[in-house]
Amino acid sequence: MPKTKYRHVFATHSQSRQSCLTPGAPQSPSFVGFRNLMILVLVFSNLRLMIENYRKYGVLICLSCHDYSRQDVIYGLALYLSIPCQLFLAYLIELVAAQQAKSALARMKKAGEEQNTPENQAAARRSFKKIWKIVAFCHGAHATFNLTISSYIVYYHIHHPGIGTLCELHAVVVWLKACSYAFTNRDLRHALLHPDQSEPLPEIYASCPYPRNISFSNLCYFWWAPTLVYQPAYPRTDRIRWGYVAMRALEVFVLSIAIWIASAQYAAPLLQNSLEKMASLDFVSIVERVMKLSTVSLFCWLCGFFALFQSSLNGLAEIMRFADREFYEPWWNVSSVREYWTTWNKPVTNFMRRHVYSPLVGRGMPPALAQIVVFFISAVLHELLVGAPTHNMLGVAFMGMMFQIPLIVFTDMLKKVKGIRGEVAGNMIFWISFCLVGQPLGALLYFFAWHAKYGSVSKQFPQSPALHLVGR
Amino acid sequence: MPKTKYRHVFATHSQSRQSCLTPGAPQSPSFVGFRNLMILVLVFSNLRLMIENYRKYGVLICLSCHDYSRQDVIYGLALYLSIPCQLFLAYLIELVAAQQAKSALARMKKAGEEQNTPENQAAARRSFKKIWKIVAFCHGAHATFNLTISSYIVYYHIHHPGIGTLCELHAVVVWLKACSYAFTNRDLRHALLHPDQSEPLPEIYASCPYPRNISFSNLCYFWWAPTLVYQPAYPRTDRIRWGYVAMRALEVFVLSIAIWIASAQYAAPLLQNSLEKMASLDFVSIVERVMKLSTVSLFCWLCGFFALFQSSLNGLAEIMRFADREFYEPWWNVSSVREYWTTWNKPVTNFMRRHVYSPLVGRGMPPALAQIVVFFISAVLHELLVGAPTHNMLGVAFMGMMFQIPLIVFTDMLKKVKGIRGEVAGNMIFWISFCLVGQPLGALLYFFAWHAKYGSVSKQFPQSPALHLVGR
Repeated sequence: MPKTKYRHVFATHSQSRQSCLTPGAPQSPSFVGFRNLMILVLVFSNLRLMIENYRKYGVLICLSCHDYSRQDVIYGLALYLSIPCQLFLAYLIELVAAQQAKSALARMKKAGEEQNTPENQAAARRSFKKIWKIVAFCHGAHATFNLTISSYIVYYHIHHPGIGTLCELHAVVVWLKACSYAFTNRDLRHALLHPDQSEPLPEIYASCPYPRNISFSNLCYFWWAPTLVYQPAYPRTDRIRWGYVAMRALEVFVLSIAIWIASAQYAAPLLQNSLEKMASLDFVSIVERVMKLSTVSLFCWLCGFFALFQSSLNGLAEIMRFADREFYEPWWNVSSVREYWTTWNKPVTNFMRRHVYSPLVGRGMPPALAQIVVFFISAVLHELLVGAPTHNMLGVAFMGMMFQIPLIVFTDMLKKVKGIRGEVAGNMIFWISFCLVGQPLGALLYFFAWHAKYGSVSKQFPQSPALHLVGR
Repeated sequence: MPKTKYRHVFATHSQSRQSCLTPGAPQSPSFVGFRNLMILVLVFSNLRLMIENYRKYGVLICLSCHDYSRQDVIYGLALYLSIPCQLFLAYLIELVAAQQAKSALARMKKAGEEQNTPENQAAARRSFKKIWKIVAFCHGAHATFNLTISSYIVYYHIHHPGIGTLCELHAVVVWLKACSYAFTNRDLRHALLHPDQSEPLPEIYASCPYPRNISFSNLCYFWWAPTLVYQPAYPRTDRIRWGYVAMRALEVFVLSIAIWIASAQYAAPLLQNSLEKMASLDFVSIVERVMKLSTVSLFCWLCGFFALFQSSLNGLAEIMRFADREFYEPWWNVSSVREYWTTWNKPVTNFMRRHVYSPLVGRGMPPALAQIVVFFISAVLHELLVGAPTHNMLGVAFMGMMFQIPLIVFTDMLKKVKGIRGEVAGNMIFWISFCLVGQPLGALLYFFAWHAKYGSVSKQFPQSPALHLVGR
């Protein structure tokens, strides 16, 4: 027998070893493969639901099916053109106030040459306060009037909720900008009249000191800049990269198409066939519908977030050569609901911190109470943004925002639990409460209320107990 | 006017910053929150499908619905008791061979005292070869006979596929153990008769040298040890932790219940209502069914893997004080299909490497060809394990295994692509080919063939074109 190179006696088992999944195994394995598996299972199961949807409904996407009336378009265009006038009015008010300040400064200088007595200073303060009262009244009156009239038109005269949402969003954004313009210029004027060396103005404002910033071009820059916070000057980039702008525009286009397809093909039939379950208050079915809707609404929400905060605002910032592009922080990793609300929408967060939270805390309000005030204002604006275009002030968006307060308390407590588990749990609570339950449930309720208002529910389900709940 | 602590002039935008999702942003954010979201979406969407399933079918789980006949149980028990006899027969053969070897050694020693000539050595080699031919024939004949008779009984006399699978699996495991026992003892005998200082036996065998290892108690240890590779001695633990064993037993129990519920409540109706689509060769529906089945089959597969390779084998190893518990490596992260097949089932991999691959390569076969031989043997065993209990040797399991060879070539090429992407793609190809397509498709085909064979398809769908394809 020829000598073989190999013998069947090799010791396969020569040492003690643990299975890697046994708790306390020396090397805990990576589970990155399961992340890939989850992605694939999500893709596969949703592709399957798309096949199912196609077999049931065919293609529902249709360009000519959007029934917006001519009246909607006319009112929408009128609002689009008239809402910015609020800023011009604010500019005119500030122009007058600046003139007043300049002449007051001249008077003070003259008086100062004579005698800078406490009596003179008190008189100057009184004069500033008197003028601010008039200025504040003018700003407040026309801002309130503008927001009210816009909301009134959206609520009563624009039927299509899409056009209504755009108009209402525009009105709220301009309203916030006008408020910031008024507050900031008030304190700049105050700083001019009562300079305080211990509290110098930010360095960046030196390039455009008050009252030089009260100019039409400065206002127009603020009008289009991707921020809600007025500053006389902003960090700027050197030049506009048009290729970058084109890429962002392409992203907005593609994402809008994706959202449109998702809503028309997947959300619309789901909402439609949930009307019956809502009408009969069949809770298990409503839960099932919310769960099914959650995937579509989550998809639309993520696409919408990216389209608005990443693509649109970055594109606009590039055109405006606006250099501070922190429009959001990585909110998807938040471990408490509080962090979510301070990171996902930096323009509004910055506004609220600068013009609501900090002034209140600076005036001695406890921080927790100031936060509640911020959430209250935010809740009112949310209700306005959802309720006015859908013609139903249900209070669901308002309550949804106010419900964030106990949730914040709860997830803050959870975060203090030691170790990574509390953070993961907090993150999951955020996703469940916000994306998997809150949004689809809200969408169902406003959709149902819409159909209850316009009669399609009462026609289809005349005995519906839910109609009494929405007061029809 | 009292001096306020706060002024609305704080510079929110004081520096240039990038949005964190912009490509090339200074700090790429973590996306760990999206991992949590994926887990939640998977849980939510599957909970929804469970509600849908419950509404459609009610509760399908039923203890008394399993229709195994008395004949199945009797044959199953008979096989369970008779299959291990193969090991006792192998032991008797080795006992005789060991006696022969001992007397040959005595003769050689006597001859060695006279003259250790090349002629004497050649004569001894001839004698060893002659005896090995007889031993190999005996082992081969009874091993083949045993596997054939077990498969025959499972195929023709055990109707219930569950009982059939257990019997066939048992038969294959014992067959592999008997092969390893014969091969290893052959080479140990050879090493005794022709000691070669350049190739010493593994140190761990010193505690039980040949022929002392040919004992009934040593065989019984190998019979129950969680390995397919025979060694005279194994690494051992000091004591049995019964609490550990109880935990593993509990895991097996819970996971078995989970698999049972998943099959009865979710897989069974899915398979049942896919018969019609299969019968009419409606490919889009078949794809849709495969996609839906993939989640259930993946769940069952992962539970089954854990129950068998982690819980059962670790529990058995603890009872046997078997210390080498590397029954698998983290196969879920593999980036090529080759790695998967060498890591998910270490007992079989160890057997194939020691008794098939290495001997073939040692005898001069190119490694690639030796791998193909290993896959061929594995494919035959897979077909036996699936085809015999389902009474249909379709060749699908065989072809599925053989198809791994081109897939290995492809993912090996992909792995060489630079960067992490090739690894992620390889991992995804593994999951898709194996868990999301291969397994559910195989399950559908064997299920259809079963119903075609036992007439339920031809009764329900007499015009089915697919019946011709499976030859009924």
